Amino acid sequence: MIEVKDAKEIKSASDFIFGNPSFANHEQVVFCHDKDTGLKAIIAIHNTTLGPALGGTRMWNYKSDAEAVYDVLRLSRGMTYKAAISGLKLGGGKAVIFGDSAKDKTPEMFMKYGEFVERLNGKYITAEDVGTSTKDMEYIRTATKHVTGLPENMGGSGDPSPVTAYGVFMGMKASAKQKWGSDKLAGKKIAIQGVGHVGENLVRLVSEEGAKVYITDMNQAKLQDLATKYNAEITTLDGIYDVDMDIYAPCALGATLNTKNINRLKCGVVSGAANNQLADEKIHGEMLAAKGILYAPDFLINAGGLINVYSELHGYDRKHSLQHTEHIYDTTLEIFSKAVKENITTLEAAKKIAEERIEAARKNNSGSCFMKTRPF
Amino acid sequence: MIEVKDAKEIKSASDFIFGNPSFANHEQVVFCHDKDTGLKAIIAIHNTTLGPALGGTRMWNYKSDAEAVYDVLRLSRGMTYKAAISGLKLGGGKAVIFGDSAKDKTPEMFMKYGEFVERLNGKYITAEDVGTSTKDMEYIRTATKHVTGLPENMGGSGDPSPVTAYGVFMGMKASAKQKWGSDKLAGKKIAIQGVGHVGENLVRLVSEEGAKVYITDMNQAKLQDLATKYNAEITTLDGIYDVDMDIYAPCALGATLNTKNINRLKCGVVSGAANNQLADEKIHGEMLAAKGILYAPDFLINAGGLINVYSELHGYDRKHSLQHTEHIYDTTLEIFSKAVKENITTLEAAKKIAEERIEAARKNNSGSCFMKTRPF
Repeated sequence: MIEVKDAKEIKSASDFIFGNPSFANHEQVVFCHDKDTGLKAIIAIHNTTLGPALGGTRMWNYKSDAEAVYDVLRLSRGMTYKAAISGLKLGGGKAVIFGDSAKDKTPEMFMKYGEFVERLNGKYITAEDVGTSTKDMEYIRTATKHVTGLPENMGGSGDPSPVTAYGVFMGMKASAKQKWGSDKLAGKKIAIQGVGHVGENLVRLVSEEGAKVYITDMNQAKLQDLATKYNAEITTLDGIYDVDMDIYAPCALGATLNTKNINRLKCGVVSGAANNQLADEKIHGEMLAAKGILYAPDFLINAGGLINVYSELHGYDRKHSLQHTEHIYDTTLEIFSKAVKENITTLEAAKKIAEERIEAARKNNSGSCFMKTRPF
Repeated sequence: MIEVKDAKEIKSASDFIFGNPSFANHEQVVFCHDKDTGLKAIIAIHNTTLGPALGGTRMWNYKSDAEAVYDVLRLSRGMTYKAAISGLKLGGGKAVIFGDSAKDKTPEMFMKYGEFVERLNGKYITAEDVGTSTKDMEYIRTATKHVTGLPENMGGSGDPSPVTAYGVFMGMKASAKQKWGSDKLAGKKIAIQGVGHVGENLVRLVSEEGAKVYITDMNQAKLQDLATKYNAEITTLDGIYDVDMDIYAPCALGATLNTKNINRLKCGVVSGAANNQLADEKIHGEMLAAKGILYAPDFLINAGGLINVYSELHGYDRKHSLQHTEHIYDTTLEIFSKAVKENITTLEAAKKIAEERIEAARKNNSGSCFMKTRPF
């Protein structure tokens, strides 16, 4: 999420970890291997100042150690920011397993992986991610209790999509408040790119408030269904950028905010669920600001899923998760205010607030000091 | 210890860990970092089939990540062999801390390092090594109980050198038994290279049994003292290889058994305390065998120090440590017998026995199965 760099930058083995451009003061990077099951995994713990590092386990067919390290370091650091800005007593971490999730998975591999998670003594808590499923989490659970995002029938929190969508909705309302003085979305033209689980829930939420919705997706059946249900207008995959809209909500692909697309956008707000929306954080963050488009930082407003699994750790309660997610509204406004005051981009403001929270906690030698000033 | 390869073999970051020529099925390689104290450490856990991985923490001014990884992987694997061949309920591991041990150490750095050891949940137990001291172990002890080799006044085992020397003495006696039919060392000419703590104790043990001792070292005062005390003969640093001797005991430098030196040796047995005595395991192991020189594998006969700290984990008792160390005699004979039977070098035989013990334990899903057939 933060500072996407090219994996090719790692030119030699000499700067593979500690000297890696993506290292960013990680606390721990753990290579795990089991000959019998073929498991190869890397667990990265970026920062545990605010609490144990929580982050999903991705399964991907990495071509090299370097590629996997690049991915896990970048994602792990992003989780630190996401947890801190969301006011959770959590640090940031992430894990990757080498392999093709369609054919290389075995229960034994995930049980063994669970043993490695267990070895970290609670400093890392895992969850599902790209290439892993709740079923895999059940296998991990046989070896460690430091796993979250379990199925509902196992006392887990189940599908987090409605909560994630609710957080994006809160960020969108705060953005409208900042941009137009009111957080009412009635009458606003909102283009939602991608109507998977999260996007679909977002369509419902904004439609119920009276917004005019434009949607696009590769799934034509789903588009037709939603168009009928919510009177939404369907656009082509590429045409979404040219819609005469107030709010652009990327809810599928990352990096859609590149130079070419930003030049086409006619909206006043960008507020969506996708990860890593800016192709280049600095260049495109500043480009949006220069065009007067208010950008609601993705890693905050899509944190509902993280808030949801966090809640599972303390005895899951969906109502409480949604209440916590509601605070994304206040935090988004806090970020906008800081961005104006310090004349920086909203993404920079979000990162600064996250860093300040961690630094304050570190100074107090306590992972929860800043929490005292917050209701959750 | 096992298969010394050139760090330069690691040509690219792509094969830095999992594809590293020195990886050798490690279970876990953990990079640890703390910004505040400047700690950079790598903990390698090679194998925990027989028990928790025990191995010292080395502090060294590594020039690159690659150099440190090469060192820690090689040493960690060697500890697995050492523990297994010694009949201990221990696996193999090792750690390295980046830095100049003369000027970069702080108590805070070692206390932080202790936290990382603690995070591994008992799967890794540390001890002192090159560049670290018992004082450093005390700092580590503030954060974790998974540290051994503490000073005697902290309930630790104190100086392990007499125990290490006793093990080398046992290996030497077993070698004499195999070579000459009797384990009596009286009248044997023994050249001891290096009279540090271990070498000095070895001089005492073999002198007490009536051997004729030749010694060399850079410390002239120490040489003079021992020459007087035990009627030992002093040689030059290089002249030691040309002594008309029965037993050559390298107790200082590694890799003294290279092609040039082996061609000079006129002994019947090599049995010493130094680590990694063979410059190339295969070439020089076979060269010794071809010359009819019996080689007592270093990683077994110098295991007294490991046996000593192992004992500390269960309530230290020097007498018990020495008794356990005495078994090095039987194991050395077992190795020689296997080498003859399978027509392999003694080092290969030692490694095979170690590997068979681990494999048997793995199959029984129990770290202690083979222990049942052994008295300790």
